[in-house]
Amino acid sequence: MSGLPDGFYIREIELQDYEGVKLTLKNLTVVEPLTKQSFENVVTFWKTQLVRNTIKTYNVYVIVHLDNEGREDGIAAVGTLFLEQKLIHGGGLVGHIEDISVSENYQGKSLGKHLIAHLSNVGRDAGCYKVILDCAEKNIGFYEKCGYKRAAIEMDKRF
Amino acid sequence: MSGLPDGFYIREIELQDYEGVKLTLKNLTVVEPLTKQSFENVVTFWKTQLVRNTIKTYNVYVIVHLDNEGREDGIAAVGTLFLEQKLIHGGGLVGHIEDISVSENYQGKSLGKHLIAHLSNVGRDAGCYKVILDCAEKNIGFYEKCGYKRAAIEMDKRF
Repeated sequence: MSGLPDGFYIREIELQDYEGVKLTLKNLTVVEPLTKQSFENVVTFWKTQLVRNTIKTYNVYVIVHLDNEGREDGIAAVGTLFLEQKLIHGGGLVGHIEDISVSENYQGKSLGKHLIAHLSNVGRDAGCYKVILDCAEKNIGFYEKCGYKRAAIEMDKRF
Repeated sequence: MSGLPDGFYIREIELQDYEGVKLTLKNLTVVEPLTKQSFENVVTFWKTQLVRNTIKTYNVYVIVHLDNEGREDGIAAVGTLFLEQKLIHGGGLVGHIEDISVSENYQGKSLGKHLIAHLSNVGRDAGCYKVILDCAEKNIGFYEKCGYKRAAIEMDKRF
């Protein structure tokens, strides 16, 4: 996977990202009610969670756009990889990719593909024996291009 | 959901469950290499993890069988519900059901259904807006009977 297009870079989510992340996630699903305070509480919580003492449980990344002077001027994409500690596979780790969203303003630049590659690599480097994700039928082709294969059916129960 | 069949009860996993849980999980997938020490490390880790300060992140339950004198004489089933803290849905929680296994010695008693009902209720009571799980195509009917609906496709990348 080559680098991101010019003018973009990827970094972990930070407390100041409330507006940009909220806007980007709206492209995916229901975000509200999400106050600045609850955003900060969640991001702070994420940053405290570790598995195997040193590995982050929540690996939440944003792709940011830079203006001509190299200052961040918008969040283009956001996505999460969280790590689950299992007993199976010798007490192995599984990475779960969740809540991938690319802002409408920044589509058509393969940012989603870059984000998936990055999160997958974070999972591999953390020692996961696999990374999994759930997607709509129409997005299977996209994830196949990212190196993923059909594995099973996701079922849900809503409250 | 009525109670469990006579001679069974459900409780959280404990450190002494190494042999029984290892045996039960073998019915599901690859368990080895899982030493007693690594089992205890994982279970101890699980018990320290909290979300929203008071809610357990890992809710791992076993159904145990009791002999005629009410002493535990085997683990019949095991299953996990872990809780993911999200930003979407107002900073909502999603429950993930994982690694459900019923021991071969105790099949045909609807223990799997009881376990899924229990884990789903734990998720609902923790405030999850949904509980999700991944299953093979052939198990869709079982999970539909447990109140689950097809939601999406699970994809994976293995390392």
